[in-house]
Amino acid sequence: MPVRPDLAQRMARIAPFEVMEVLDAARRLEAAGRDIIHLEVGEPDFPTPEPVIDAARQALATRPMFYTSAVGMPELREAIAGWYAASFGVTVPMERIVVTAGSSAALLMALGALVNPGERVLMSDPGYPCNRNFVRFLDAEPVLVPSGPADGYQLTAALARGAWGVGVRAAIAASPSNPTGTCLDPTEWAALAAVCRARDGVLIADEIYQGLVYDRPPETVLSIADDVWVVNSFSKYFQMTGWRLGWLVVPDGCTREIEKVAQNLYISAPTPAQHAALAALAPEGLAVLEARRAELGARRDVLLAELPKIGFAVRARPQGAFYIYCDVSEFTDDSFRFVEWLLETTGVALTPGRDFGDAAPEQHLRIAYTQPVDRLREAVARIGLALEGLPSRA
Amino acid sequence: MPVRPDLAQRMARIAPFEVMEVLDAARRLEAAGRDIIHLEVGEPDFPTPEPVIDAARQALATRPMFYTSAVGMPELREAIAGWYAASFGVTVPMERIVVTAGSSAALLMALGALVNPGERVLMSDPGYPCNRNFVRFLDAEPVLVPSGPADGYQLTAALARGAWGVGVRAAIAASPSNPTGTCLDPTEWAALAAVCRARDGVLIADEIYQGLVYDRPPETVLSIADDVWVVNSFSKYFQMTGWRLGWLVVPDGCTREIEKVAQNLYISAPTPAQHAALAALAPEGLAVLEARRAELGARRDVLLAELPKIGFAVRARPQGAFYIYCDVSEFTDDSFRFVEWLLETTGVALTPGRDFGDAAPEQHLRIAYTQPVDRLREAVARIGLALEGLPSRA
Repeated sequence: MPVRPDLAQRMARIAPFEVMEVLDAARRLEAAGRDIIHLEVGEPDFPTPEPVIDAARQALATRPMFYTSAVGMPELREAIAGWYAASFGVTVPMERIVVTAGSSAALLMALGALVNPGERVLMSDPGYPCNRNFVRFLDAEPVLVPSGPADGYQLTAALARGAWGVGVRAAIAASPSNPTGTCLDPTEWAALAAVCRARDGVLIADEIYQGLVYDRPPETVLSIADDVWVVNSFSKYFQMTGWRLGWLVVPDGCTREIEKVAQNLYISAPTPAQHAALAALAPEGLAVLEARRAELGARRDVLLAELPKIGFAVRARPQGAFYIYCDVSEFTDDSFRFVEWLLETTGVALTPGRDFGDAAPEQHLRIAYTQPVDRLREAVARIGLALEGLPSRA
Repeated sequence: MPVRPDLAQRMARIAPFEVMEVLDAARRLEAAGRDIIHLEVGEPDFPTPEPVIDAARQALATRPMFYTSAVGMPELREAIAGWYAASFGVTVPMERIVVTAGSSAALLMALGALVNPGERVLMSDPGYPCNRNFVRFLDAEPVLVPSGPADGYQLTAALARGAWGVGVRAAIAASPSNPTGTCLDPTEWAALAAVCRARDGVLIADEIYQGLVYDRPPETVLSIADDVWVVNSFSKYFQMTGWRLGWLVVPDGCTREIEKVAQNLYISAPTPAQHAALAALAPEGLAVLEARRAELGARRDVLLAELPKIGFAVRARPQGAFYIYCDVSEFTDDSFRFVEWLLETTGVALTPGRDFGDAAPEQHLRIAYTQPVDRLREAVARIGLALEGLPSRA
């Protein structure tokens, strides 16, 4: 789509999500009566946990829904600090925690505070599509660093060292990662932070899928470094997607600067969501979330067992989030058309690789295990049947 | 406050709000037992209307709080279009309406879509402080155009024509305005739009206080031009401040571009707020809001009658919003210190002029009539008493 000539130049560099076209096509088929299995959008099928809903309803009945402080309600910042202590044994003073309008706001403010126009930001390819578009919105330049199975599809310290060049100001890494579900372990985080530090650069850690890991306990980079900018969210583990709430942990001495940006760009994060989030961090809320984590882990295990049988190759073990990144090069060299074909043929909606980068997008697609196990099994069965009928590579 | 040298250069150009220091000082006095009359923050004392609260509680009990479309729930976009038709007799197709995370998001997306780094944006001085900081966040340049009583403290067509120069890309005007409460009438809007159009520039209209006018029915620039970008909000007239919901009306053909930015920067506006806002636009909600508008009008009238008696000069009649911009040059040439002194002496908290621009900030302060009439009368009485005791100019 050509950009209108009267719009700012950055608009030509910001791409819409390919997955939205898949979603639109899926909805058209659904409207026509087809049974569609939605595995394309990064949002689980679970509703917001009951204790969180109850807390919001209670707050609406009893508390005014005025603006809060630009950095968030003190009791919520304190609760997040308490959650870091209880969950990870790490001390994160509430003064370093800024409650934000989703992790989207956290990421924009972090990049806005750190990166000048024309400067560069390293990130792994494949990776979360918005990361590069946040950077472009600020007229800075994303540097997509191709990463493969050997790197766990991550921006490793070695890759960052190799890609660092003139004008690089920061690096973004996510653990677990979207679209691959792979993690950076503490040693790798430490090495990556050291690479950034040695180059007077800043590491931005995306921990929005932090609580959703299945092979080991959750971890935070804050256990090993306190000069990292950490983005987190109530959307994924805490399953409050539509509420638009997240947070940013900044190094000592940076809160006032971020507060200034928050005042101007957001005023404050949504008040109903802040009240609700208090319940997500309380024992009753966490109990629901842990049960759902177990369910998501079971879904992952089913897919990891079934996908190889239909020729969808998983090259690096996904340890978290709710995504599996599949190598489908056996079937296609145009994953967008392949995803379209799968949707039409099988009614299963997936995300083509193009949304996640430029390195090998046509050989990959992402499956979001955001449906119950029986639906996942059915999706795999439908796809398997369709692929059996293929004469050769699509 | 000097910016940290490791932060982006734009951070040095973005100032925190002076009013926050007043607010902090007011809270300290309050904690020490003083009775403080808060007239400093741009948020009325009314809670969210009951029908809106009820709708939100109902939605929480019955609807999933998932992400919505990046441009908003279709039924809310349709309701806003219907509200334009019913309230102003103007046809605004829902396709041109983008529901946003507060008018803050609307303004950032509009500026982001329109203005390149280094380009300039005209705005009136005095004006809403965030406007210039949004522009600076995008590494563009705000041009503060001094406007006085003769211009209604507005960016008139004549002022815009005079200030237009190399690199000017857009102009922002607000009606009613913060901090002055003054309006642009349709003739003036049309003239300003024509000035922008003739220079291949874009007019951004801030209508977030639109419904709050007291001398005449509300108006919209959309009645006279469809190439204007219009920012609106559920915070002020609709009194849903903490919910963080607003909208942006874009010219024909721009929605897909803004959708792209919304997907990347916000994902979607808060879902609970979108459900709640439907009730704000329904007859029961509007009835509450109209009663409150009458109450705010009565408050304005009391202050307009009382302020001249204590020497606070109101140089242009405020017709809307909930602000009165006072010339206090009779008492001070340092309005920040004057506001501090008033707070300590009288317990009345006001906003110093510095937040609103560079033109004549030290001679002005803003009163927000966000308290009931008896409290406003008491505030004026306390201030009057203190000023009587003044030997001469502070």
